[in-house]
Amino acid sequence: MPTQTPLGFRFAGVAAGIKKTGAADLALIVSDRPCTAAAVFTRNRFPAAAVLYDRALVAENPAGLRGVAINAGCANACTGDQGLADAAKMARLAEAALGLPPRSVAVMSTGVIGPRLPMDKLAAGIHAASAALSAAGWDAASRAIMTTDTRPKAAFRQAGAARLFGMCKGAGMIHPNMATMLCAIVTDAAVAPDALAPLLRQAVDVSFNCISVDGDTSTNDTVLLLANGASGLHVHMPVASAVSTSPQSTNLPIYQETETFASALTSLCTDLAQQIVRDGEGATKFITVCVEGAASDADARAAAKAVANSPLVKTAFYGGDANWGRILAAVGYSGAAVEPARANLWIAAGGGRGDAGTGGRGDGERTLQLVRAGQPLSYSEETASAIFAEHDIRVTVDLGLGDGQATVWTCDLSHDYVSINGHYRT
Amino acid sequence: MPTQTPLGFRFAGVAAGIKKTGAADLALIVSDRPCTAAAVFTRNRFPAAAVLYDRALVAENPAGLRGVAINAGCANACTGDQGLADAAKMARLAEAALGLPPRSVAVMSTGVIGPRLPMDKLAAGIHAASAALSAAGWDAASRAIMTTDTRPKAAFRQAGAARLFGMCKGAGMIHPNMATMLCAIVTDAAVAPDALAPLLRQAVDVSFNCISVDGDTSTNDTVLLLANGASGLHVHMPVASAVSTSPQSTNLPIYQETETFASALTSLCTDLAQQIVRDGEGATKFITVCVEGAASDADARAAAKAVANSPLVKTAFYGGDANWGRILAAVGYSGAAVEPARANLWIAAGGGRGDAGTGGRGDGERTLQLVRAGQPLSYSEETASAIFAEHDIRVTVDLGLGDGQATVWTCDLSHDYVSINGHYRT
Repeated sequence: MPTQTPLGFRFAGVAAGIKKTGAADLALIVSDRPCTAAAVFTRNRFPAAAVLYDRALVAENPAGLRGVAINAGCANACTGDQGLADAAKMARLAEAALGLPPRSVAVMSTGVIGPRLPMDKLAAGIHAASAALSAAGWDAASRAIMTTDTRPKAAFRQAGAARLFGMCKGAGMIHPNMATMLCAIVTDAAVAPDALAPLLRQAVDVSFNCISVDGDTSTNDTVLLLANGASGLHVHMPVASAVSTSPQSTNLPIYQETETFASALTSLCTDLAQQIVRDGEGATKFITVCVEGAASDADARAAAKAVANSPLVKTAFYGGDANWGRILAAVGYSGAAVEPARANLWIAAGGGRGDAGTGGRGDGERTLQLVRAGQPLSYSEETASAIFAEHDIRVTVDLGLGDGQATVWTCDLSHDYVSINGHYRT
Repeated sequence: MPTQTPLGFRFAGVAAGIKKTGAADLALIVSDRPCTAAAVFTRNRFPAAAVLYDRALVAENPAGLRGVAINAGCANACTGDQGLADAAKMARLAEAALGLPPRSVAVMSTGVIGPRLPMDKLAAGIHAASAALSAAGWDAASRAIMTTDTRPKAAFRQAGAARLFGMCKGAGMIHPNMATMLCAIVTDAAVAPDALAPLLRQAVDVSFNCISVDGDTSTNDTVLLLANGASGLHVHMPVASAVSTSPQSTNLPIYQETETFASALTSLCTDLAQQIVRDGEGATKFITVCVEGAASDADARAAAKAVANSPLVKTAFYGGDANWGRILAAVGYSGAAVEPARANLWIAAGGGRGDAGTGGRGDGERTLQLVRAGQPLSYSEETASAIFAEHDIRVTVDLGLGDGQATVWTCDLSHDYVSINGHYRT
């Protein structure tokens, strides 16, 4: 992958001693000029201190942010008033170390819920990180935000003259609701705050909001997007307006740039979201769940999410057991409208989106239809088991009711998920 | 426990060869006189053939049922029109073997979703079971409906002159929605159909509808209640009416009998529901989740269910890890109204309901408050770990907002759950 970070941003990741293991746990991202900012946050009603802090900060200073400080090992959630004070102090420590004005640095935290931030360790870590900043520091920064992640997650995109870089962490407590686990995205495009927010929301809605590891929505989910304009590429309009106006018009290059940027941002978010699923706690398989023919897109999403969250579906995938009845059972309790006699079900090897032009929901011989118009079809257990044994699997449900469709990505539920979470704090 | 079954009912359980293991898999319950009947069924939108059959049957013949035939090993769900025909034939086979009129026997099925019922084996099994009926056959019947259950589940209650017996199976795909996994309850009370239905619904709502093993709602959930009147005890009124009229009045003995019956029925259902949780797939712990002080009972139930279904909470219990932040995180995404600064959290050893009179949410020294008014309290990890190491654990969340309360029972999520469900069909 290309690894050229957006102009004007520097990164660092260091070990501050917050994690018991001594691994890196403190990341800084800093821009050499003010950024516009947009963010989406968890809807969990016990939001972490950093979520409360950033929500107010982005609203107050949407065109003057300079960076973000992130710690792993402690979520600073369910920590009451003291937690809020600690988050504010974390931001001030970073601003002071970087010689930046007050209220210019956002904060994020991830780790165990309940304990307080160790402020002394944090202060020393921020000091060390501020001395280590560089354009090449993105890799160290992406490693410093990991918890049970087994590998760092980063992605790069180009949008005309502008570059985008994003990094995130995931692993467990992954069932984003309008946001996901920690993710920081930076770009050197110039984007006004009123364009940045809808662009981010649109990208998140089809990426981070379409993944699940375990159905648990975190207290700390945050996606923060900073745009510093250093590339000179200007993005003014929310893409929805741009698309509805005239995407083909050649005398409106600004719209084309917006589209290019929106497309790159969505692609970046989808890449990162899928990286989270592939590295889900204990995950051994990557499963794409497509629901089509639903009465509405909302129904399709509800059905796909029910399949993606079902412990029974996920354990069957883990075991390589073609127990497809569990898939329809999950659709059946999802709340989506269903007429059993119209339902169709396919499984296929490969994680990509099915191409209807190639005869259905997969790549030909590696696709198996299991249910047609509500009737189970006879099939070769050998073929089904071979598909279920793959690492990347696609499930397609056609409800035969309308045009609603959705795609959701999930992983299996393995013994290792139980091991990891039975002793997370130890 | 007392094991005297209601008068006029006989039971049998035999091996029909539907299960690959050769274990008992066919149960019959028959009354020597017509019964009134009430039932609650799954709200899964892929209902099993037996659910569709029984729903129509109970509506059509609510005072003339004579029994029920139940098979394990095959759920006859997602089987289309052929499945419906097979369910009807199963009922006719039982009626013929027992010399009963058409449309007098209900059917239930549990097991793998998708495959067809093996009708030849079923016919032979029904024939053998009809020859083996006896009042003492309840134990064999309760064993014949097991799937991944490790032990049979039965309960007895007395309500004045009337007796009640219930048997059920559970283990996995347990997240009942207005019903649960298979449960048959019989009584020799005389109860009119218009009284039986609300009595059953009321009992199910606070018992089977308050348990969860894995959050998956089955296609086959059914609770069927048959009342044959052989005891001579008459129950006429729904208990809600009775209570609101005059429960203490001595010149209205009919209301007292209704109350006694309703209380016995609820107690029976709660006993069976808790047996399902204690024998949940892979379960090593029994967890009582109490939410109080919610804005409404509905909020309390949503919050308690979110905690009970959270894979992260359940794996923490399995690991004996006092990772209490996950409990509040689950409450936070449940949809219930929350003001973090008003929330309180306790954990306690013992599975019963907390008694507020004894200083809170447990039995004194074995109760530990972890959060007060949204602030985490310092506590001894040793004490917390000792409580989490218990088999029966109670979690109490007080949201400090109103009078809403709910109690839900769940089990932990263990390696064995994954093992059992990774290879369920093999």
